[in-house]
Amino acid sequence: MAAISQARLVYRFGGGLSEGYSLGGTTKMAEVLGGKGKSLQEYAHQGLNVPPGFTITTDVGSYWLKQGQVPAELAADVSFGMTHIEGITQRNFGSVENPLLVSVRSGGRVSMPGMMDTVLNLGLTEETVEGLATMFKNRPFAFDSYRRFVESFGKVVLEIDGKLFRGQLDLVKADEGIRIHPDTDGKLPAEAIESQLLPAFFELVTSQGHQFPVTPQQQLDQAIEAVFRSWMSEKAITYRALRPEIKDDWGTAVNVQAMVYGNLPNSGTGVMMTRNDTTGANRPVISFREGGQGEEVVSGSHSTVYLPQFRKKMPSAAAEVVRVGKEQEIRGKNMQDMEFTVEGGRVWWLQMRDGKRTARAAVKIAVDMVKDGLITKEEAVQRITPEQILQLLAARVDPDAEVEIIGKAAASSLGAVCGQLVFNSKDSIALAAKGGKPILTRVETSTDDYPGMAPASGILTQEGSEGCHAAIVCKSEGKVGLFSINGTVDEANEQVILDDGTILKKGDWVTLDANNKVLIKGEAPLVPPKGLTPSARTLLSWADKFARLKVRTNADTPEQMEYARKLGAKGVGLKRIEHWIQEDAELRQLFKEYILLKTPQAKARRLLTIRRKLKKNIKDELRIMKGKPVVIRLLDPPIHEFLPRPEALYEQLLSGRRTRRDLLDRVKKFSEGNPMLGHRGVRLGITNPELTRMQAGAIYEAAAELIKEENIRVMPEIMIPVVSLKSEIEDQQPLIEEEYRKVLDQFGLTPRRLKGIVGTMIELPAAALAADQLAEVARFFSFGTNDLTQTTFGFSRDDVAKLLALYREKGLIDRDPFETLMPEVERLMEIAIELGRGVNPDLEIGICGEHGRDPASIRIAHRIGLDYVSPSREGVAVARLVAGQAALEDM
Amino acid sequence: MAAISQARLVYRFGGGLSEGYSLGGTTKMAEVLGGKGKSLQEYAHQGLNVPPGFTITTDVGSYWLKQGQVPAELAADVSFGMTHIEGITQRNFGSVENPLLVSVRSGGRVSMPGMMDTVLNLGLTEETVEGLATMFKNRPFAFDSYRRFVESFGKVVLEIDGKLFRGQLDLVKADEGIRIHPDTDGKLPAEAIESQLLPAFFELVTSQGHQFPVTPQQQLDQAIEAVFRSWMSEKAITYRALRPEIKDDWGTAVNVQAMVYGNLPNSGTGVMMTRNDTTGANRPVISFREGGQGEEVVSGSHSTVYLPQFRKKMPSAAAEVVRVGKEQEIRGKNMQDMEFTVEGGRVWWLQMRDGKRTARAAVKIAVDMVKDGLITKEEAVQRITPEQILQLLAARVDPDAEVEIIGKAAASSLGAVCGQLVFNSKDSIALAAKGGKPILTRVETSTDDYPGMAPASGILTQEGSEGCHAAIVCKSEGKVGLFSINGTVDEANEQVILDDGTILKKGDWVTLDANNKVLIKGEAPLVPPKGLTPSARTLLSWADKFARLKVRTNADTPEQMEYARKLGAKGVGLKRIEHWIQEDAELRQLFKEYILLKTPQAKARRLLTIRRKLKKNIKDELRIMKGKPVVIRLLDPPIHEFLPRPEALYEQLLSGRRTRRDLLDRVKKFSEGNPMLGHRGVRLGITNPELTRMQAGAIYEAAAELIKEENIRVMPEIMIPVVSLKSEIEDQQPLIEEEYRKVLDQFGLTPRRLKGIVGTMIELPAAALAADQLAEVARFFSFGTNDLTQTTFGFSRDDVAKLLALYREKGLIDRDPFETLMPEVERLMEIAIELGRGVNPDLEIGICGEHGRDPASIRIAHRIGLDYVSPSREGVAVARLVAGQAALEDM
Repeated sequence: MAAISQARLVYRFGGGLSEGYSLGGTTKMAEVLGGKGKSLQEYAHQGLNVPPGFTITTDVGSYWLKQGQVPAELAADVSFGMTHIEGITQRNFGSVENPLLVSVRSGGRVSMPGMMDTVLNLGLTEETVEGLATMFKNRPFAFDSYRRFVESFGKVVLEIDGKLFRGQLDLVKADEGIRIHPDTDGKLPAEAIESQLLPAFFELVTSQGHQFPVTPQQQLDQAIEAVFRSWMSEKAITYRALRPEIKDDWGTAVNVQAMVYGNLPNSGTGVMMTRNDTTGANRPVISFREGGQGEEVVSGSHSTVYLPQFRKKMPSAAAEVVRVGKEQEIRGKNMQDMEFTVEGGRVWWLQMRDGKRTARAAVKIAVDMVKDGLITKEEAVQRITPEQILQLLAARVDPDAEVEIIGKAAASSLGAVCGQLVFNSKDSIALAAKGGKPILTRVETSTDDYPGMAPASGILTQEGSEGCHAAIVCKSEGKVGLFSINGTVDEANEQVILDDGTILKKGDWVTLDANNKVLIKGEAPLVPPKGLTPSARTLLSWADKFARLKVRTNADTPEQMEYARKLGAKGVGLKRIEHWIQEDAELRQLFKEYILLKTPQAKARRLLTIRRKLKKNIKDELRIMKGKPVVIRLLDPPIHEFLPRPEALYEQLLSGRRTRRDLLDRVKKFSEGNPMLGHRGVRLGITNPELTRMQAGAIYEAAAELIKEENIRVMPEIMIPVVSLKSEIEDQQPLIEEEYRKVLDQFGLTPRRLKGIVGTMIELPAAALAADQLAEVARFFSFGTNDLTQTTFGFSRDDVAKLLALYREKGLIDRDPFETLMPEVERLMEIAIELGRGVNPDLEIGICGEHGRDPASIRIAHRIGLDYVSPSREGVAVARLVAGQAALEDM
Repeated sequence: MAAISQARLVYRFGGGLSEGYSLGGTTKMAEVLGGKGKSLQEYAHQGLNVPPGFTITTDVGSYWLKQGQVPAELAADVSFGMTHIEGITQRNFGSVENPLLVSVRSGGRVSMPGMMDTVLNLGLTEETVEGLATMFKNRPFAFDSYRRFVESFGKVVLEIDGKLFRGQLDLVKADEGIRIHPDTDGKLPAEAIESQLLPAFFELVTSQGHQFPVTPQQQLDQAIEAVFRSWMSEKAITYRALRPEIKDDWGTAVNVQAMVYGNLPNSGTGVMMTRNDTTGANRPVISFREGGQGEEVVSGSHSTVYLPQFRKKMPSAAAEVVRVGKEQEIRGKNMQDMEFTVEGGRVWWLQMRDGKRTARAAVKIAVDMVKDGLITKEEAVQRITPEQILQLLAARVDPDAEVEIIGKAAASSLGAVCGQLVFNSKDSIALAAKGGKPILTRVETSTDDYPGMAPASGILTQEGSEGCHAAIVCKSEGKVGLFSINGTVDEANEQVILDDGTILKKGDWVTLDANNKVLIKGEAPLVPPKGLTPSARTLLSWADKFARLKVRTNADTPEQMEYARKLGAKGVGLKRIEHWIQEDAELRQLFKEYILLKTPQAKARRLLTIRRKLKKNIKDELRIMKGKPVVIRLLDPPIHEFLPRPEALYEQLLSGRRTRRDLLDRVKKFSEGNPMLGHRGVRLGITNPELTRMQAGAIYEAAAELIKEENIRVMPEIMIPVVSLKSEIEDQQPLIEEEYRKVLDQFGLTPRRLKGIVGTMIELPAAALAADQLAEVARFFSFGTNDLTQTTFGFSRDDVAKLLALYREKGLIDRDPFETLMPEVERLMEIAIELGRGVNPDLEIGICGEHGRDPASIRIAHRIGLDYVSPSREGVAVARLVAGQAALEDM
């Protein structure tokens, strides 16, 4: 209480005032006044047209959160603020002659678009509406404003379901013979509003147990509290839950501002992105609705026009909007999202914030702004998020696939996604929880749908344009959205009826292709994009320059290596021979035979065939990665992974296939109680030295052939997995060395042209703790952080998912340990690095676990001094970015 | 070469000389001259009767090992030594008139009884034998000596199979109508030896491709080399392999000494233990063979008489032997094993060493010697080995069991063992390698059998007395041996034919009961002894006084706790509730139902029954352990361990039991790929809080009832297993606390009378690395070193045995990591201790893994500052001893 009574509760703006500047900086302004309040102060400070008003601080918002009421002294300060507005507008709040109307809008520190509430045209009563009509000599306008106010006050402040108001509106429209569509809202005659609609609205309010406030002051007080309350609405809480950087106890500010009227003649309301928020092109994108007011543009519920038509209708206003937009962009060093209203041809600025954008746009804008000298390369690199890089590389529908296009639509963000239709938030959440991919399908999405949008893989709506709220969410979160589909969404019966009569039911699979703006039946095959956009290539090349950490890739096929190289991988950190075997039926069969056959001769024959094929595979890969190191890991998994599962064989036996008994008995010999802790990795090589020889021989022969036949530089390195003892490496090295020498001799190569480098994985705690000994015999270390996490925590990766989900739900753990490194694993890595580099200061050390794609883990890798990370596929691009950012954060 | 030529190669003794004393101390003497050489110097130094001679140093022995020949300058020194002997004996080597004969005997630094070779009566030729006969006026004696010499030289130096000589001997005996038995060797007339046996022997030597040396000097040179060579005999190598403290490169010394003749009239040879080497009683034990020579007593191949008969026959010699024995024991502060020969009534001393003894004897002797003021308590504690403590507690046949006694025998060590008959070393090694328990069965064991004796669980022989070599091995290694069984061992056909006609075949199970000196058919039930002997109790109480480390026990039943308490456990370090469940069919069924039943009510009912039974069990145990802490671990294993195995159910299905399908499907839901890393320990308590409540409730209720009903002090402590996160403990603590408070209220107890102590296991690397956090919420730590080893090394305990055997065979690892702590695990423990005590300096920390019974690991536990170790059963006594020794080693 004390703190509140001493602090200033409202800051005024407009009419030459911009009191927020007394706070001493835009950061502080945003904190105290919220983003919207800050932008209004800025507009005012620059002398731009801004409807006068005041902002009630976030301190009051957080006071409300704690006390459940506003501080007593607020009333006086609000009254002081209202006087300011009355003075400048020369209108009076509650006056029948020249009534002042105000808007009451929320505005948190950080933009939470559409999450909180707004009341427009506040101050209208049965008396003042007449004054408004007289003042503007426009009775339809006055009553249009009145019915808007009653509806929005009813919804926002009294919390009555908005559909009930729409229902009444549609009844009256029907009576009047007006088409039932949001666009026709303004077509109702004043008489119909006065005599039919408003009585119906007030009756509705009463029937819901409320009393509509009769004085403007009551309206204002209630609206202010409602805005504070909206901070704790379900959708706002959900939104923040997904963005832990927005704290629950911040509370919102409230902006009270004189109304300007887009619903007058030669008027309208609009939103401008100063650049194209989908592509990043340096041209403003404006959505304008003539005669519109408030959220009609943002919500996507009403039709809008774009810049050319806006220019045609209101050339000077349009020119001013574009000019101011460019100025603000330069001033803010960022693409701006600006709301404005044109009243009688005059432009009023209502809000400004950094604009949400697609990943593609974000990268292009950042790079363009560096070229224009607006920001530095460092700023550009730090401005892009890992998620944006991932979005940039989101899948697209395979252009060679035959797909059945069943719909056309508008789209905002790019990408393609397959999923199953669901028709409400509950089903979306439930499906996602089961690991499914919900496509949330609605007539139009409203912010109430946010809980279901967050877990959805995609959004499909009947209504809405490319600038609507749902589109903004899709853009900023990298979700694929299709809007205005050519058909009807029947929410009640959970189906979509397309214009050609096709019916899609709940659970049906579809593919949203936002790149081509089409809806595809079923699951279309998706492929990764060909590579990075030119802007992204530029941006990541800057990141590379800053970075200390190098980025390799985990890749098991020539195709994967090709792609990773395109994304900028500096080598292969992990190629897994077992993946190559497991992905090919013939190889699987060969390997199975090698295991199960009994005579050494037959076994050896199979191994020889495998060796020949492995050589070819390695050759293809080394060719692609020429000039770069390729770490090839010797066979890692337990033998039984190459055999049929005993359970499957039992089932076959039960179904009468007697011949499986023998196979079952042999397979069972290989089964282990805990295979993860069993006969795998180097242990296989020790019991079956012929496997080590086969692999080493194939690798060196592939390299030698490339050198001889194609004269290219190849850098294979052999990595021994699951090591815990120095003696294990010492057991394997002579076998590898012998194969290496054989190949050098056979091809007449020197050790300089074909190096024989053998390193080890550090994936067991024992290896980390004995790293000094291992460093005496291994040329490099690579942390297998998945397995290291597994043994450090005793979490079996294959079994632990359900348990970890419970742990996270109960708050026992704050991350997925297989995604982000745990501190205990980090500690083991530090120990290993210290011990290893103590013996060999030049020891090359990397991560080949998939932690290498996780930003927090990449930062750890940077901090503890690793040489490289090695994620798979698009993780390469993410890691390049984060490696650069981590280095910049050091400075 | 240089080093050898400067050093002295021989040290003389006898006739007033004891040149070894110039080396400056008995330790140095043993090192340079070997144990036997040292003892001869000591005898000579004291003026006791010792046949004059000299010792060739171990330096020459190790020179021989490196160079494969003796140094050139040795010849002159040997000649110098021979001159010394000739001077004192007034006999001449090679003389026909007064021939000097010598013995050539091995003697390493450390006694390796019977492992190396001896040649007696060396110097006899066709000429000198006549001189010997004349000199002693005893032609039978001379020829007896000659045939002994030729046989032993043939065997030892020429390496001809001894059986071939025995065969010839038996042929001649048969010719002469003499009973075929080693005891009748001396009955052969000189004529038969001269005309039949010796020609046959020489022919045998020639037929084996050798030439028998014709001059005494040749004999001597060859015998010296043979003794050096015997250091590398297979049996000697095997012996050392099991005693890594004896280094392969030491080499042996050689003792050349004038012969004294036990095979003259009024003569004989004997062995004395200065105390009873089986019971430890303070009375000498003497085996004497009249007319015997050399190894006849030690090898057990010839009959001997004991002290009373010896006294009767040679009263003054016997008195002298006993008197000298007592003197030497006082001088050596240890029980002595002394060899002597009586020649014409005069006693000659040939060897002295600390006597091998049973564990029981060792402990009694050590304690008695403290009482007699011979040694200190510290020395007594350090003199006993952990193996001796284990032997002391070796099993005996259940006295209440009905067993079928099929044979009677002699025995040396105590104990009882069940095993399968094998008839040669190869089979013994093979069976032991498979985890079997071989009983090595021979006519008589010779040192050649050592490779098969080492892995054998027991020894059974047809011949041999309680003082024979096999008996000594059994005593010193704690093996159970039965000798002179009433029957015949038929080695060729691999069977034992008992006197009553019973035939035992290879592979048959028998029980050797050395306590009762009987052979039992089949596997008799064995039980641990009732407790420690009084001497052992005294000795361990001394160890306790020195120890810093306390000893608790791992025990799961009242019986186990009772036994451990008798052995001196200071509390229970680990009681496993799951063992209690798994060992009782009714409990297993109840628990299975609790898991598989579907309705919460039915589940709860089962849990209530389990709780009632658990309470009773805990009550019984707390009563036994009253006044001492009892750490009870909450359920640890994965759920599926309480269910039938899917594989078993599949087999039942295959055999037509259709009803199993449903059970199978339910059981499969609980199966995990890697259960060791799965849903177990605290994770069970988190998903099934009712389990934690049930256990905590039962434990506290049991304690409260004991306090109320019996007014005894009980100290239950609850331990949470498989913890890796502080939050896991924080999740469980409120559940336990609630049950604790409920019981306090219900019984009206204060927290002072019933403490609510909750601690955690440290059995995952993550727990060790986060020990500072865990110490904030856990009252104690207990290292689960088995699991910690498992995850640190990624070795699945259940699967890894075969792999570890290969690793040890290949020398990749020097220990069983589940037996002796690995350095990496030790490092994690140190980290945990440092972090834990950093937060709570009084944190109690122990080991509850079975490493707590391993001497090396106990020393580690002492060094890193643990409060206690907690082994099971007889490990308690071992740990008490080693804890004391570890503390003494610190001083």
